[in-house]
Amino acid sequence: MSASPKIVLIGAGNVGYHLGQRMVERGLELIQVFSRTKEKAKELGKLLNVPFCTNLDAIQKADVYILAVHDDAIGSVAKQLNIEEKALMVHTSGATPSTVFKPFAKRYGVFYPLQTFSRDRTANFEEIPFCVDANRKKDRILLEQLAQRLSPKVYQITDKERESLHIAAVFVNNFTNYLYQIGTDICEKEKVPFDLLKPLILETARKVQEHPPEKMQTGPAKRGDEATIQRHLKNLERFPHYQELYQHLTEEIINFYAK
Amino acid sequence: MSASPKIVLIGAGNVGYHLGQRMVERGLELIQVFSRTKEKAKELGKLLNVPFCTNLDAIQKADVYILAVHDDAIGSVAKQLNIEEKALMVHTSGATPSTVFKPFAKRYGVFYPLQTFSRDRTANFEEIPFCVDANRKKDRILLEQLAQRLSPKVYQITDKERESLHIAAVFVNNFTNYLYQIGTDICEKEKVPFDLLKPLILETARKVQEHPPEKMQTGPAKRGDEATIQRHLKNLERFPHYQELYQHLTEEIINFYAK
Repeated sequence: MSASPKIVLIGAGNVGYHLGQRMVERGLELIQVFSRTKEKAKELGKLLNVPFCTNLDAIQKADVYILAVHDDAIGSVAKQLNIEEKALMVHTSGATPSTVFKPFAKRYGVFYPLQTFSRDRTANFEEIPFCVDANRKKDRILLEQLAQRLSPKVYQITDKERESLHIAAVFVNNFTNYLYQIGTDICEKEKVPFDLLKPLILETARKVQEHPPEKMQTGPAKRGDEATIQRHLKNLERFPHYQELYQHLTEEIINFYAK
Repeated sequence: MSASPKIVLIGAGNVGYHLGQRMVERGLELIQVFSRTKEKAKELGKLLNVPFCTNLDAIQKADVYILAVHDDAIGSVAKQLNIEEKALMVHTSGATPSTVFKPFAKRYGVFYPLQTFSRDRTANFEEIPFCVDANRKKDRILLEQLAQRLSPKVYQITDKERESLHIAAVFVNNFTNYLYQIGTDICEKEKVPFDLLKPLILETARKVQEHPPEKMQTGPAKRGDEATIQRHLKNLERFPHYQELYQHLTEEIINFYAK
């Protein structure tokens, strides 16, 4: 394999869109992009000035295939990809074990940028940690070197570690965003602007960049302020689901700090 | 009352500490600070170059008394404060109704900076919304004007609205911070650095500044990815409390998006 391996990017969703741009920006040898959706393939191909295709049979010979597709499509795409034995196949998923590739490739691994990507938001790769892994040591090093060309933050993370990391990510990203949704909903029903909470949301996230969350916990549950908790629960009778969640989280916090 | 009312600040905790500094910085007439804890009273008094006291009997005559004390101390401090009838008494709490002052003051209200304050972090008041309220219209205007000298973001918010706002704040701040704590704990047990999740946490909070959280939701629950959810639940058997919370939040998200 050459010092700068030839790469094919499979998938032009949020991850593919940003990862492709970063790879081209940093001079990696991206030789082709694929998406089943013609508009997406074309858009990304043109943006990157790289050939695109919409048919897996038209995928070119390469050294590394990066599958940036939905978790549940990784297996079936890998199966359909007719790659050479010496090629390396990786995916960009936090949730999927690298062993998904075992039946389809001799050399396989993971190339996981741990961030939430949106089409219309700039991705700051200088801050995005890459978690890499491979079934062969040489490929772990290769993927580490590739990732280092995209970000200063590169970690070798095993499947087992990555599963825990992904679960933790579900808590701090998916579930947190849902709490934001609840906040929005409560504000809307009361007709107070959700904007009032935005600086608080940002500061809460900033604090944890520098301080352990355990030390930053505040609020009625942490204080054991039963009067406020009861007033809140009564107020939340309008929203039985939120009331139940308030109670659950409050009990957890009380238990946690009683330890 | 003069155009620039004489203010006494009661409390030198996180809110008092930052609010006091901002008031002095913006030229408000802060004539005295109080804390029961001598070191805190002294520290803040010296920092602000304002007389301090540690005894409620030594509180000076003023136009406005700002009680930046714990929620459960507001009533008892108000009771002990021997203020003149024409003085205005306010607190800085999100959780406490303004009517807590009814037995002790003719003129009362709320002066609530909606942010989480820490001693060792700079408070950016340009971004901090102030929620003001008072039992008299004139005082609502007075408090609004005072708040406008501290922040460009000032809102008249009734007790009822503020209660909902505070509940929403519990979800997006207290509960969110607890989810960060869970993330930390899972990472520690697996010995992967929590640092890997910090950019994700920040980006999640940044996204909601510009986009409604409903549109930003991602993850296995949103996708209805039952295989990943089951794998996560199995993995979380080591942490029965987190497992239960994962299940609860996952069900809520599934229900929410099934609507």
